[in-house]
Amino acid sequence: MNSKIKNDRLLRALRRQPVDATPVWVMRQAGRYLPEYRKLRKQAGSFLALCKTPDLACEITLQPLRRFDLDAAILFSDILTVPDAMGLGLQIIEKQGPHFETPVRTRADIDRLPVPDPEKDLRYVMDAIRTIKPALADAVPLIGFAGSPWTIATYMVEGGPSKEYALIKGMLYGDPESLHSLLAVVSDAVTVYLNAQISAGVNAVQIFDTWGGLLSQPAYCEFSLQYMQRIVEGLQADANGDKVPVILYSKGCGQMADRIADAGADAVGLDWTVDIGEMRRRVGARVALQGNLDPAVLYAPAEVIRREVAGVLEAFGPHNGHVFNLGHGIQPEVDPESMAVLVDAVHELSRPYHCS
Amino acid sequence: MNSKIKNDRLLRALRRQPVDATPVWVMRQAGRYLPEYRKLRKQAGSFLALCKTPDLACEITLQPLRRFDLDAAILFSDILTVPDAMGLGLQIIEKQGPHFETPVRTRADIDRLPVPDPEKDLRYVMDAIRTIKPALADAVPLIGFAGSPWTIATYMVEGGPSKEYALIKGMLYGDPESLHSLLAVVSDAVTVYLNAQISAGVNAVQIFDTWGGLLSQPAYCEFSLQYMQRIVEGLQADANGDKVPVILYSKGCGQMADRIADAGADAVGLDWTVDIGEMRRRVGARVALQGNLDPAVLYAPAEVIRREVAGVLEAFGPHNGHVFNLGHGIQPEVDPESMAVLVDAVHELSRPYHCS
Repeated sequence: MNSKIKNDRLLRALRRQPVDATPVWVMRQAGRYLPEYRKLRKQAGSFLALCKTPDLACEITLQPLRRFDLDAAILFSDILTVPDAMGLGLQIIEKQGPHFETPVRTRADIDRLPVPDPEKDLRYVMDAIRTIKPALADAVPLIGFAGSPWTIATYMVEGGPSKEYALIKGMLYGDPESLHSLLAVVSDAVTVYLNAQISAGVNAVQIFDTWGGLLSQPAYCEFSLQYMQRIVEGLQADANGDKVPVILYSKGCGQMADRIADAGADAVGLDWTVDIGEMRRRVGARVALQGNLDPAVLYAPAEVIRREVAGVLEAFGPHNGHVFNLGHGIQPEVDPESMAVLVDAVHELSRPYHCS
Repeated sequence: MNSKIKNDRLLRALRRQPVDATPVWVMRQAGRYLPEYRKLRKQAGSFLALCKTPDLACEITLQPLRRFDLDAAILFSDILTVPDAMGLGLQIIEKQGPHFETPVRTRADIDRLPVPDPEKDLRYVMDAIRTIKPALADAVPLIGFAGSPWTIATYMVEGGPSKEYALIKGMLYGDPESLHSLLAVVSDAVTVYLNAQISAGVNAVQIFDTWGGLLSQPAYCEFSLQYMQRIVEGLQADANGDKVPVILYSKGCGQMADRIADAGADAVGLDWTVDIGEMRRRVGARVALQGNLDPAVLYAPAEVIRREVAGVLEAFGPHNGHVFNLGHGIQPEVDPESMAVLVDAVHELSRPYHCS
């Protein structure tokens, strides 16, 4: 399986197969902490221009791989391309974040939402993947991704970032039927979008549920996990007929990790508030675990980074099925040198835990 | 004990003694969702003017008790009065939040910090308590409070609200000794502050650890819980020689609730992401539990509020030691009528769980 990928540690770890060293990639590894990214961002004029220009998205995807010995590339894009393609008019406002021109507020708004055709309405993403794949030359796997329906829906309803999430949570408790209709159409959109990414060539996919942690446990199961599970069930095999591994990452949902492990995904992404050793004992070998160093460790000197990496590796222990990552995206202020320390420490310090 | 308090449900529940109905109070029950509060706020010109004028702080403390059948009053104040008294120059900027003129950034800044004398530097708080107590006429207990050292320190170092918490977490991983020095002096300040509140007449105290959830589990124990425990150990008895119950509330720390339950407090406050029934099974009768309805439920119609209240009561079950509360502060947009529905539902629907 995927034997053509030269460094297949990530894919092997996601399938709980033996590896020689723990694979590592980092959420937002292609992004603002890299000066070469900031230069391109400035030239392009906007974040969305980068996302929507396949050559630039390809270049940014590859930037961190030139600097660091990473075990995967992740497509440079954004989770809000899907609602943008559904007609909401995405804008990314500097220092404020995403904003939709026409947020979704009523049942009529929801009933009007189309399921975008990825090869037409999100063609720039598919073209980016088709540009990246030959450029990567199968050195490492390419990870595709999408937002979870719940997380995408929070932005669609609130119209942008929110402090109280009063609108979406008001809908959740006050008009759950409408919210279910919204989540259903977003789930359909995400499913066809991820399947198109698989057809275009990605080797694994991650679903980002950034706002799952806003929910009580019953609400999380009903309004977030259920729809991620539906997407996982709808994913197709790759061109070779092989199953494409799926990672579910719900931030702030450590208490739900057992339940997430039963959703049918290959791996569960953990934020840094979870004890990864305890979680391994709880979920056993059912799924791989991804994570979970505190992103703020990268503000510390090299010896502290190495010590904290060692702590995560020791907590996970000598099992198959660990993909090293931060517990959340790398922060913009981090020195790229610290990222090099992290990546090298994972490979070096993890070898004793592997037998091959 | 506290027999002079007419409605002592809260104090009995905090001591895991039988009650006739589950007591209920709500974080931020005195605040922005009440039109009579907003009127006073406008007249006073600033939030801090309200805090620093004992008669106004008293009036605001009493406002929700005139409307709702609450089982406790909570002092109207702010967790940042302590660092303000340490000389940092607190300002509350409209729609932005708190801001310190002179944040703490270096070891020298930390070494200069005094432990304020509450009767001198925070006299307005003590005077507020001494104004509220006779006005309350022992109808219900008065809850005093302070921020946790970790939470106060995040504001002192960041200088205000933050998205990444890069400065305080950089200190945590890069210069933990300085952070421990800061937390030690803040702990001393909070201990004498809470003891002064007890001397002035409060009947219970809560420590608010709003930002405990930013931390990994080992970091939470080392940098937040340890210092809250130190404060709990330093609290004095009330004027009758009775122990004053303490509630520890760490937001986003459901995974740590077992550990928090061992810190010596009488009660653990839970946010709405915790399954309160599972937590009761885990901690047993060691401590009371406070919480934990999703604050967003108050956006819903009355019948949904009643259903969700019933769910929390049922999850906790027929045990002593439940104080009903929201899982976080009531949100400013909530209709006060929904608060009435909540309070009445708790009293009515909890009676079958109590025998007296």
